[in-house]
Amino acid sequence: MAERAEPEALVSAAEGGDPRALARLISLVENGSPQLRSVMRLIAPRTRQARVIGLTGAPGVGKSTVTGALVRAYRETGLRVGVLAVDPTSPFTGGALLGDRVRMQDHATDGGVFIRSMASRGHLGGLSWAAPQALRILDAAGFDVIMVETVGVGQAEVEIASLADTTLVIVAPGMGDSVQAAKAGILEIADIFVVNKSDRPGAQEAIRDLRSMLAMANYGEGAWKPPIVSTAAMSGEGIDDLIDRLNAHATWLAESGEGERRRVARAREEITVLAVAQVRERLGALPGEARLEELAGQVASGKLDPYSAADELISP
Amino acid sequence: MAERAEPEALVSAAEGGDPRALARLISLVENGSPQLRSVMRLIAPRTRQARVIGLTGAPGVGKSTVTGALVRAYRETGLRVGVLAVDPTSPFTGGALLGDRVRMQDHATDGGVFIRSMASRGHLGGLSWAAPQALRILDAAGFDVIMVETVGVGQAEVEIASLADTTLVIVAPGMGDSVQAAKAGILEIADIFVVNKSDRPGAQEAIRDLRSMLAMANYGEGAWKPPIVSTAAMSGEGIDDLIDRLNAHATWLAESGEGERRRVARAREEITVLAVAQVRERLGALPGEARLEELAGQVASGKLDPYSAADELISP
Repeated sequence: MAERAEPEALVSAAEGGDPRALARLISLVENGSPQLRSVMRLIAPRTRQARVIGLTGAPGVGKSTVTGALVRAYRETGLRVGVLAVDPTSPFTGGALLGDRVRMQDHATDGGVFIRSMASRGHLGGLSWAAPQALRILDAAGFDVIMVETVGVGQAEVEIASLADTTLVIVAPGMGDSVQAAKAGILEIADIFVVNKSDRPGAQEAIRDLRSMLAMANYGEGAWKPPIVSTAAMSGEGIDDLIDRLNAHATWLAESGEGERRRVARAREEITVLAVAQVRERLGALPGEARLEELAGQVASGKLDPYSAADELISP
Repeated sequence: MAERAEPEALVSAAEGGDPRALARLISLVENGSPQLRSVMRLIAPRTRQARVIGLTGAPGVGKSTVTGALVRAYRETGLRVGVLAVDPTSPFTGGALLGDRVRMQDHATDGGVFIRSMASRGHLGGLSWAAPQALRILDAAGFDVIMVETVGVGQAEVEIASLADTTLVIVAPGMGDSVQAAKAGILEIADIFVVNKSDRPGAQEAIRDLRSMLAMANYGEGAWKPPIVSTAAMSGEGIDDLIDRLNAHATWLAESGEGERRRVARAREEITVLAVAQVRERLGALPGEARLEELAGQVASGKLDPYSAADELISP
């Protein structure tokens, strides 16, 4: 497959199961290639509505091990699985993620599994711009389940988790303030809590903490109440239970209409991010760039306030 | 002080050292108040160029303890210190941060110290929009040193750290993959590495890991090479050394011209974020909102691709 293959050829090859074509398409996303426009136009009618599972949690809780165990379980039922490991931090991240990826090498020769690390290359909009497009590509290429794994519990991770149909928040005992950190801002994104490494001391406390946290939350009539699942993903313990909970959540999404609502909300966000990136690109284009530099100097020295500077920048 | 005090009155009171006026001004930022425009216009000429120190690191490394120790040290030299604890995760965060804040209560009656937790309330642009404005307010109110403490090492934290003149990246031994996590994406933002809890087992390994990581980095002629400082902030150990390093970095910033460059770059980013937020607000305004909903439905069902939808949204 040529390096400069046309979008049409790449899309057909990826649909036919060519992992190199798929990898190349996702690189186009990472690099913010201008070809993406045609790629997205080509794949729009191929939208198959794969099931998207988000996994998030602090470093060290065992996200990759849980992901690996789920990949294995889904493969046993014959489903094709894509894994997108996104790292909201910038260029230097390759190492940490690649280390994790090594653990998943047992799937390396399985054509029904595609695993890809993705980092934001600092282009406009970062991962909130890139991740949804990578998901579209995997969806169009025929994967049944797509797992999106993110590090940490910051804002970027929350945004990326919001791409998923079902979000797993993973904690582990003995990870410092992991449960406390988990409380911070992710209560609202968790559809299922996973207490991994449940064979370690402190697991019961972690479960109890999560339970009392959930007991304080206020769920409306018919709302989904996030269950807490214990796993020891390294040995596969609890993974069947987790799969059951995932299926129950999928059923709830379909029956409540929440699944459709989430899909539309995601598309809305995706369109807005692209529109804003486009506007932002225009602002940064010359002669805007020189003007911006000048305004920035005035704001830095206190001659101008930032709002007036923004007004001057966007007024024609 | 009345709840609906005019911007002029608030700004004068804050300048005169009234902590309630200061708190009220920062609430205006948190709530994205329309009054901010006048506030920013009023304080622009009062820009005093306070020194901004960013502190970041995974939960549990002791950021608040290091912050507290630095506050104490600066107060001993008579400097006024503002602390902004920003949490890039959303509304639910109050708890975790407030818990940390309790440790800093020994400064509660000191008029030379102002401490404030800040969460993004989900308005446009989030903390990348709010944090610079809060910094401006503290600067204009006469604080000599402003510390910005953020949780974690995600993209939002990196953005917030980029507000600082000097960024401390804090790690601690025995925090799981903390050093590995620290490598991910923050090498480029650290001006000083702090290995806190250096009295615990594993501290030497953490220092060694950081050293070998730094040895691989490529610093140009005249560039700042981030030092590694060991602290046990709870007992105050190493804080004098840290203050020395901070002063050395301040001198380097001034002599190399990098300080001025960072200030202008910050203003540039701040203007861009405000301009983009303004454009985004227009996109979301009716009738844009209804149109966006319709386009999102088409994208979700595969009738339209997101780029074409974005084009339709921003074309007049």
